[in-house]
Amino acid sequence: MRNLLADLPDARGAECFETLLAGPGVRIERIVSRGQVTPEAAPFDQAHDEWVLLLAGAARLWLDGQGDVALAPGDCLSIPAGVRHRVTWTPEDRETVWLAVHFADH
Amino acid sequence: MRNLLADLPDARGAECFETLLAGPGVRIERIVSRGQVTPEAAPFDQAHDEWVLLLAGAARLWLDGQGDVALAPGDCLSIPAGVRHRVTWTPEDRETVWLAVHFADH
Repeated sequence: MRNLLADLPDARGAECFETLLAGPGVRIERIVSRGQVTPEAAPFDQAHDEWVLLLAGAARLWLDGQGDVALAPGDCLSIPAGVRHRVTWTPEDRETVWLAVHFADH
Repeated sequence: MRNLLADLPDARGAECFETLLAGPGVRIERIVSRGQVTPEAAPFDQAHDEWVLLLAGAARLWLDGQGDVALAPGDCLSIPAGVRHRVTWTPEDRETVWLAVHFADH
């Protein structure tokens, strides 16, 4: 057993991505951010559906068609395939921990 | 967007199960417990792999071959298909919130 909020990697230099579990059609990933944002010119644009849950910290996420949304721990949302999105803010003074579930085509 | 820790259902009478998302080969579920345990004579014994993450509260979980494990928020573990398991404790004075990911055959 492990704890997703303990012994966090040092994400000050770059976001830390870790696949926790992968099976047919699904991959569960933990992402640790610390101040990073997605470049405005390079939003994510994925061929697969994704579901994200904020476990700790805070974030703002921009979604094409929805605009900017603020995320607190416990907040979750679906990001359908093809919906451009980018992280527009994570705090620099503490870690933000995401759970991302990627469906198929990964 | 929704928050998995807010506006919790009243679980004092019975655990509350809610499917958040279902796709090919995977189903994501939130479970809210408040004092419930799995009857010793009727452990879960599933034909599919499961992954659980404790989001809030506390719990103890018994797994065949591993014994009793205590769970705190952020703790996660895999429960392979066929491994009997049961919840042996959740606190009665507050809600415990689980995220369960069920793989295939659901």
